[in-house]
Amino acid sequence: MARVEIVTIGTELLLGQLVDTNAAYIARAMADHGVDVYAKHSVGDNPERLEEMLRASIERGDGVITTGGLGPTYDDLTKEVVASVIGAPLELHAPSLAAVEARLRRFGFTEIGENNRRQAFMPVGADVLENPHGSAPGFVAIRGDGKFIASMPGVPREMRAMLDERLVPWLVERFALHDAIYTRTLHAVGVAESEIDRRIDDLFRTLENPKIAVLAHEGRVDVKIMAKAGDSAAADAMIAPVEQELRERIGEGIFGVDRQTLEGTIVAECTARGLWLGTAESVTGGGIADAIVRVAGASACFRGGVVAYDNAVKAALLGVEAGTIERFGAVSEEVAMAMARGARERLHADVALATTGIAGPAGGSADKPVGLVWFGYAAAGETSARSVTFPGEREDVRRRAVTFGLNFLWRRLTRVAEMKAG
Amino acid sequence: MARVEIVTIGTELLLGQLVDTNAAYIARAMADHGVDVYAKHSVGDNPERLEEMLRASIERGDGVITTGGLGPTYDDLTKEVVASVIGAPLELHAPSLAAVEARLRRFGFTEIGENNRRQAFMPVGADVLENPHGSAPGFVAIRGDGKFIASMPGVPREMRAMLDERLVPWLVERFALHDAIYTRTLHAVGVAESEIDRRIDDLFRTLENPKIAVLAHEGRVDVKIMAKAGDSAAADAMIAPVEQELRERIGEGIFGVDRQTLEGTIVAECTARGLWLGTAESVTGGGIADAIVRVAGASACFRGGVVAYDNAVKAALLGVEAGTIERFGAVSEEVAMAMARGARERLHADVALATTGIAGPAGGSADKPVGLVWFGYAAAGETSARSVTFPGEREDVRRRAVTFGLNFLWRRLTRVAEMKAG
Repeated sequence: MARVEIVTIGTELLLGQLVDTNAAYIARAMADHGVDVYAKHSVGDNPERLEEMLRASIERGDGVITTGGLGPTYDDLTKEVVASVIGAPLELHAPSLAAVEARLRRFGFTEIGENNRRQAFMPVGADVLENPHGSAPGFVAIRGDGKFIASMPGVPREMRAMLDERLVPWLVERFALHDAIYTRTLHAVGVAESEIDRRIDDLFRTLENPKIAVLAHEGRVDVKIMAKAGDSAAADAMIAPVEQELRERIGEGIFGVDRQTLEGTIVAECTARGLWLGTAESVTGGGIADAIVRVAGASACFRGGVVAYDNAVKAALLGVEAGTIERFGAVSEEVAMAMARGARERLHADVALATTGIAGPAGGSADKPVGLVWFGYAAAGETSARSVTFPGEREDVRRRAVTFGLNFLWRRLTRVAEMKAG
Repeated sequence: MARVEIVTIGTELLLGQLVDTNAAYIARAMADHGVDVYAKHSVGDNPERLEEMLRASIERGDGVITTGGLGPTYDDLTKEVVASVIGAPLELHAPSLAAVEARLRRFGFTEIGENNRRQAFMPVGADVLENPHGSAPGFVAIRGDGKFIASMPGVPREMRAMLDERLVPWLVERFALHDAIYTRTLHAVGVAESEIDRRIDDLFRTLENPKIAVLAHEGRVDVKIMAKAGDSAAADAMIAPVEQELRERIGEGIFGVDRQTLEGTIVAECTARGLWLGTAESVTGGGIADAIVRVAGASACFRGGVVAYDNAVKAALLGVEAGTIERFGAVSEEVAMAMARGARERLHADVALATTGIAGPAGGSADKPVGLVWFGYAAAGETSARSVTFPGEREDVRRRAVTFGLNFLWRRLTRVAEMKAG
């Protein structure tokens, strides 16, 4: 297995003025092609530090991939440092000079300056990586022992094109990388991570290719199937039986795969069954309606909602009786159910979801602490409710209540067993 | 000048499944406090590689800051490795155990497992950094020669709070960081970045300390004042006259400073003036109501809203006449104003904001393209509307419409000159 390190170069990275998206992009491409990334580093525009870093990195693997420091200005020193580490002097690379000149002419320049000429110098013997989106070409310089340093520009758009179109094919050829990593991710809600672990532990331990990984998110658990294969058809054939097995074991908790979202699944489910949906939100303030409207095509099944923040609105627009609020409190099972019933009627919906809770920081009590949220559900012949006390601050509670509310709605819609606390 | 390196730990970083925002956040905090970041590294959940990395990093500076690998599972190995590098064994830290137990009890667990107990072990002599947002505490372990390794969890929200509230003060004390960078950021809406540039260009060119920077965001322009000073009182004295000058030049467009948000300013303004607020949203789907409810204390001025996604809801809950929708279309000045008037009446609000638009991908026409949004405003004796066509895809349009809608509401509330297009 080929092994590389990634070195991103630029003082702005060390000042925190830029988030290093290049390193993540390269890392993903390497993972997809079965190349092991041993470590990632960032270093400033400082030739001594860069040289120290590259000299150490190249010893630990087959090569190093760098970004940044290939521009025309005086602090762009990557090429000089790489030449020194590799032990190959810089020489003028005629096709690169022609490309730089052609590019400058396109922008209306008639003379090429010394700075731009510098961009056409390359370590002797390097493979040049053309830059379709910018002036600085990249290169792969190879040391006597076969180890390499590949250098690309730091501008993400230029780097990505050069990586995908030039460097990855170079690596595939060089290291005979015939296998890429293909993934499929199953999304589950309403089943605790520990429960999923219990049900698939033996697969997790024994499967090698494809292998599986479990990742917990807020209110959702992902099970990722990763296959190393020569092409996507071969990968599909390897993934399909594992997916089948996982679906049997995890069961109804799985609501979608890959880019599918819970709100998208709800919209698809309601649309397919001809069900109109409505919401009545207090503590979530419109966040659940907003998630549903995020889905293109939501208008086929979403009537709308009422953000009943004030109790007067719960009464006026949802028909919740003042007596119910007085007797049980606004945050109660009874009010959650009355809100859901009211939303169903007033919005002419078949199915309605309601939330009422205490997001804090104020408003909590011993009985009803900050974080308590009641969810109500109303459909033909059915009204139900359940409560959860979410940890965290105001926005944590509200965000978790949106995710849980969508879970709750989806589980009721698909009539599966009672959810475990999210 | 203190010098540190940053090491972020986690196999997902090397697989490119995560962009390393933690490293950038830490780097910025170091830059703000005059600490030199010599390099940044990422390494997988592999104790040998981590140990090799930490042993090299600690030699190059005064200390190392790590994130990740402090969780309860078997692949969280940061603490063991740091203990080995520092030369201090792990011991049970009673206050941390109590904190972990208290947290688990809040989640309803009665027994604490071995995994969670592990989180309460610390290198002997380490300064423990409490975690207000999660279960894993951090720590600073100090080697015999005074060099340190500070370890924080990898969850960004937990890491950021721990860095800002615990580790930075520790570093300030330890390295007597007397010249820190203090900033104050003025937020402006309704004034184009180029117009702000024009008004403050001379200050931008001539000021050295404090200096200023202009940063454009979606629908908002920030002007940042940065002072290098020995303490916050000295910084305040340097910043105040510059802030005064900027306020005079930029004028009414400035709605807040630092952590103040537009929705927070709206809530404060309405509460101070005793105005009740309501919303009627179609294209924004509850996003504006949700932004307002985000503000703690919103209940003092926010009645609620109607998410009138379906035209039937615009009629039933907001009293928009079917004839108005037929004649002008749901996305029109007339309907936006009728929705705002309806929300004001039905929600018993003093002031109401309405949105109706076409987020796409379908539904656009030559007359009314995807991206067109009408905003309506209703108050005592005033109804008005304006439209904007936002670029981008469905979520871009919706997000921009939320920001613009809040701008629109705030400008109407404070009766300032007509806004320029956002």
